[in-house]
Amino acid sequence: MKRIGILGGGQLGRMLLQQAANYPVETWVMESDPGCPAAGLCHRFVKGDIRNRDDVVAFGRQVDVLTIEIENVSLEGLQALEAEGRTVFPNSHALGIIRDKSVQKAFYAEHGIPTAPFRILEDGADLHRNLDFLPAVQKLATGGYDGRGVQILRTEDDLPKAFDARCVLEKLIPVHKEVAVMVAIDADGGQTVYPAVEMVFDPLLNLLDMQVCPADLTEQEGWKAEAVALSVARNLRSPGLFAVELLLDAAGNVYVNETAPRVHNSGHHSIEGNFCSQFDMLLRLLADYPAGNTDTILPSLMLNLLGEEGYAGTPVYEGLGDVLGMADTFVHVYGKRETRPGRKMGHVTLLGRDRHDLMHRAGIVRRTLKVKGTERI
Amino acid sequence: MKRIGILGGGQLGRMLLQQAANYPVETWVMESDPGCPAAGLCHRFVKGDIRNRDDVVAFGRQVDVLTIEIENVSLEGLQALEAEGRTVFPNSHALGIIRDKSVQKAFYAEHGIPTAPFRILEDGADLHRNLDFLPAVQKLATGGYDGRGVQILRTEDDLPKAFDARCVLEKLIPVHKEVAVMVAIDADGGQTVYPAVEMVFDPLLNLLDMQVCPADLTEQEGWKAEAVALSVARNLRSPGLFAVELLLDAAGNVYVNETAPRVHNSGHHSIEGNFCSQFDMLLRLLADYPAGNTDTILPSLMLNLLGEEGYAGTPVYEGLGDVLGMADTFVHVYGKRETRPGRKMGHVTLLGRDRHDLMHRAGIVRRTLKVKGTERI
Repeated sequence: MKRIGILGGGQLGRMLLQQAANYPVETWVMESDPGCPAAGLCHRFVKGDIRNRDDVVAFGRQVDVLTIEIENVSLEGLQALEAEGRTVFPNSHALGIIRDKSVQKAFYAEHGIPTAPFRILEDGADLHRNLDFLPAVQKLATGGYDGRGVQILRTEDDLPKAFDARCVLEKLIPVHKEVAVMVAIDADGGQTVYPAVEMVFDPLLNLLDMQVCPADLTEQEGWKAEAVALSVARNLRSPGLFAVELLLDAAGNVYVNETAPRVHNSGHHSIEGNFCSQFDMLLRLLADYPAGNTDTILPSLMLNLLGEEGYAGTPVYEGLGDVLGMADTFVHVYGKRETRPGRKMGHVTLLGRDRHDLMHRAGIVRRTLKVKGTERI
Repeated sequence: MKRIGILGGGQLGRMLLQQAANYPVETWVMESDPGCPAAGLCHRFVKGDIRNRDDVVAFGRQVDVLTIEIENVSLEGLQALEAEGRTVFPNSHALGIIRDKSVQKAFYAEHGIPTAPFRILEDGADLHRNLDFLPAVQKLATGGYDGRGVQILRTEDDLPKAFDARCVLEKLIPVHKEVAVMVAIDADGGQTVYPAVEMVFDPLLNLLDMQVCPADLTEQEGWKAEAVALSVARNLRSPGLFAVELLLDAAGNVYVNETAPRVHNSGHHSIEGNFCSQFDMLLRLLADYPAGNTDTILPSLMLNLLGEEGYAGTPVYEGLGDVLGMADTFVHVYGKRETRPGRKMGHVTLLGRDRHDLMHRAGIVRRTLKVKGTERI
C-alpha cells in the first residue's frame, strides 16, 4: 500500500484521514501533540516537530508521498527530501512563495496576476515612511495564521497597533464580494477547478464566518475568478490543492487576496456539497488517481463552529442534539481537547436549494450550537 | 467525551469509525487481529476475543455504550453487561433471537410477521424425514455468515450436499423481487425508516452482488415492505439499526427473509446516496442524538467488490484508477491485508438519476475493477 505522510495533525489532517480510509493507502501523521485531532485516525502517528528539518526528513523518508495540512513546516526539510527525488504536495518552491506574504505578493505582480497595490516594509520605522499609502491592510510577512497577523490601518491614529515587523502594506480594496476558488493540480500539471464559494455576511443576523456555494456571481465575474485562480495555481508550478481567495469590487474587478497550498477552510462544504470533496481530491492527487468531479450536488452553506468567548478547558457542545435534529444539517466536530475563544472547534454544513432558506437555517444553528468549556475565563 | 465501543473490526466498523470522527466521541474497538480494517481508525484498539465472555465484559466496562459489527459475539458477555445497567445496541434479547435462525423464524411466526413456511430440523436424519417439504432452502441455524450456510435443496438429488446440522428448512418462495429495508430504533423506541433498496441482477451482463436504491416497487409493495420491516424492528424490542431483508412474489406478497441487527451491506449506498448514512444513523443512536434524515439525495447503485477467483495474498486493485476516472463513482476499499476468492474487499457506489444508466455504468465498473492478489491459487 502506498504510504501517505501528512505533516500536521489538526482538523484538516483529520478530515483527510476520514477520506483516506476509502483507498488502499497507509496513512502516517507527524505532529508534536499525540492528542491532536488526527492522531486517532492514522495507521502510524509519529511524534515530531514539523518545523524541525531533521524530523521532517526522517518522516518523509518513511513514506512514499508527503503533504502538509499547515504551512508552518520546515522548508529545508522538504527541499532535502525533494533533492532525494521525493514528491511533496505542494513542492517547496510553491510553499516558499506562499508562506512569506511579501514573496507571495511579488509573485502575483511578476506574473501579472491582479492583486491590490502593495509595498513591502521592513519594520515599524519603514511604516512611518509610508503613511501616504494609508488606508491599507497590514499583513505580517511571516507567522500570520487563521486571521491573525492581518489588520487594517486606516489613518495615523491606528499606528499604535501596527505590527513592528517585516510586512506587506496593501491598498484597501472596496470589497463588494469575497470568494474562494479551489484548484487541483496533478503531478502532470493537469488542472481541475471547483465552483467558487462566497464568504457571506448577514448584517441583520450579524452572521460571520460562513460561506455559500456556489457563489452568487455574474457570468463574467465567475469566468474572471476562475481564470485568476487557475493562473495562480499554474504559475506556482507545483502539484497539490490550492485555495485562492479573491476580492471583487463593485466594478467586477478581481484581485487575489491570498492563496493556501493545501486543503482549506473554504472547501469544507465540498464534503457533502460536491461529488468529490477537497479531501477526496487531495487523496486522489497523492495516490496518483484521476481527479474527481467537482460539480455541486446541492447548494451548501458552511459555518465555522468557534470556541465561545469566555470559555476554555474541555469543550462542551451546547445544543448539538438540537442542531442534529435539523434536516440536512451535517456537523463536523474536530475532537480538540481544549477550547478557547475563537478557536475552530468544528463546522456545520447545510444543504438546500434556496439561498435564503440556507441563511435562515444558519441563523438558527448559530443561535443554538455553542462551544463552551469547563473553565470560565 | 462519550466512549463508544465496537465489537469487531471489519469493514462495517471501519466505515462507522470514519463517520464517528464527526462527533465528540471516543472510539474503542475490540478484535483479535490488530491488522483488521478498523484498527487504524479508532482511539483505542483492544486485542481480544469478541466470542469470549470475559473479554467482552472487560471491554464493555471501559466504554459508555457498546455496539457490534458482527453477530458472532459472546451473548453471555452482553447479558452480563446489561445486568450491570449498561446499554448495548442491539440488546442481547434481539441478538439472541436473530443469530439462531430457528429462533428468528419462530419469532416471525409468533408475531404474525409474514415469512416463508418452515420447519426446524435437528440434523441430517431429521432432514430425511422431511423430504416432502422440498424444494426448500436449507439454512444452518447458527454459524452461517455472508451467504455461507445457506443453500437450495430442490430434490433428493441435492441431499449429498445437505448440511448435517440443526437448521431451518424453508419453502422456496418464487422470488419476484428482493429488497432490504433499514430501520433505526432509538433508545426511547422511536422509529426511522430508510427507503427500500433492491437487490438487482442483470442476466445480460451477468451482474450479481449489486443493489439499487430506491427500489422499483409499486406503491402498495412499498407500503407493505415498510410495514413488515417496522414490525420486525419494533417486535425485537431493542434499540439499534436493523436491516430487514424481504422477498416479494409476483402477487406482491412480502416475506421476511432474514434480519441483521447492525449496519449492513444493504445500506452501503446510503453513505453517498442518502442525507444520513446508516453509519451516521447508528452513531446518532449510540450518542443519543436525534435520528437523521433518511431521504435519498440521488438514486444510487452499489456493487460489492469481491476478491477474484484464483487469487490470494496481498490484494492488487486492478483498474482502480480507471474507475476513479468515471463520473460520480465512489470507491470504498476496506484495507484488508489479504484477498481470497469471493471475499468482500470493498464496494463501489454510483449516483445518477437514471436506473438504466446506473446499470450500464455498473457493468463497466465490474469489467474494469478487479481485486487480484500476489498469489495464484
